[in-house]
Amino acid sequence: MNNENGAVVLLSGGIDSTVLLHHVAKELKCASIHALSFDYGQRHAKELACAKWQAESIGVTQYRVIELAFLKDVLSGASTLMADGPPVPDLQDIPGGDTEQPPTYVPNRNMMLLSVAAAYAEANGIRDVFYGAQAQDEYGYWDCTADFLQRINTVLSLNRRDSIIIHAPLITKSKADSVRKGIELGIDFNHTWSCYRGGDTPCGTCPTCVERSNAFKALGERDPLTS
Amino acid sequence: MNNENGAVVLLSGGIDSTVLLHHVAKELKCASIHALSFDYGQRHAKELACAKWQAESIGVTQYRVIELAFLKDVLSGASTLMADGPPVPDLQDIPGGDTEQPPTYVPNRNMMLLSVAAAYAEANGIRDVFYGAQAQDEYGYWDCTADFLQRINTVLSLNRRDSIIIHAPLITKSKADSVRKGIELGIDFNHTWSCYRGGDTPCGTCPTCVERSNAFKALGERDPLTS
Repeated sequence: MNNENGAVVLLSGGIDSTVLLHHVAKELKCASIHALSFDYGQRHAKELACAKWQAESIGVTQYRVIELAFLKDVLSGASTLMADGPPVPDLQDIPGGDTEQPPTYVPNRNMMLLSVAAAYAEANGIRDVFYGAQAQDEYGYWDCTADFLQRINTVLSLNRRDSIIIHAPLITKSKADSVRKGIELGIDFNHTWSCYRGGDTPCGTCPTCVERSNAFKALGERDPLTS
Repeated sequence: MNNENGAVVLLSGGIDSTVLLHHVAKELKCASIHALSFDYGQRHAKELACAKWQAESIGVTQYRVIELAFLKDVLSGASTLMADGPPVPDLQDIPGGDTEQPPTYVPNRNMMLLSVAAAYAEANGIRDVFYGAQAQDEYGYWDCTADFLQRINTVLSLNRRDSIIIHAPLITKSKADSVRKGIELGIDFNHTWSCYRGGDTPCGTCPTCVERSNAFKALGERDPLTS
């Protein structure tokens, strides 16, 4: 990438995208950073306050929350991740197997978010978009895999003038790798949010709480949100 | 496709998508049809009234206008097709050459619309989505080409459970082919809208007016909108 041209970062407010934001800001030294969050009716919309805090903490050029108000209607409660969907199950109650889609899967969400981010980048003269998918996501989500990313880029490469590239440097990394990298980068994890249930405190038993907890434990580190 | 499962049709209210809608309804005899229009801040939003009229005329199962209110902000006036963009030029004032993007190009619009349509289909248990791109569009728009369609389908095929297929049966056809097909299908072209300028009557000189006019002329037919 050409870091004089700036970057768009998809920022959910979770660990991976926050690590990505700090990586782009501190290690790639992009001339400008546009951090985009999406309000799509997710149950854990409180992640957006963390996204904003992180974006402001590094002084991004632009921080935008893009309101995808239409998605509630389009998805008709098809995911437990949506505020109007069925309840989020505990990880232990979700059947295993990577040929299934977990109930926390949101139909085609990531293709929608990446296509909006690419449109934003193109309209603003930016070529590089950063996406925080990481390796453990792909057990559950086809739209977090390296194959998915590669094929999305194959679509975007057809653009005759300003073709956008989506980068996902964490896509081969584990959640523990993200936490380790975040510690190196000096991230305050107190201002990140993972729990799908979006309560006052992390529930500790939903899929992303368990994954987050295991990642900190694997490193012998404490998660400030739960300790 | 399996026509017992129903179909999603992207319906702009222009000639091509209207022909597609009638084709799906009358020739494919799908058990259910969900017609989706998008209000993305286009200058010619009056096409939506035509879309609704056509959808109701064939008694679709569902007709939805999906409000992409966020796009105005995301695209920051980057296209003449947007109500807040620069004026639409006459076709004769647009430089030629298929390596350029015309000023009527909307950054990454079609990838966004198709990804939303695919999400809608997936959430509603439908596998087949119909998209009205036609061959002449590809001179100006990379996201109307057969290559684009094929690559989008390559992304969607990764879905582990309910993979969606986008069909674009007009993608190798000309606008005149669409008009001819529409006449065969008994379409009332009085209730279609093409003009990008979106005035009370078609301007006659913008790119899509000229294309539409040429298509009717090539067949020796009269366009009820302008005659």
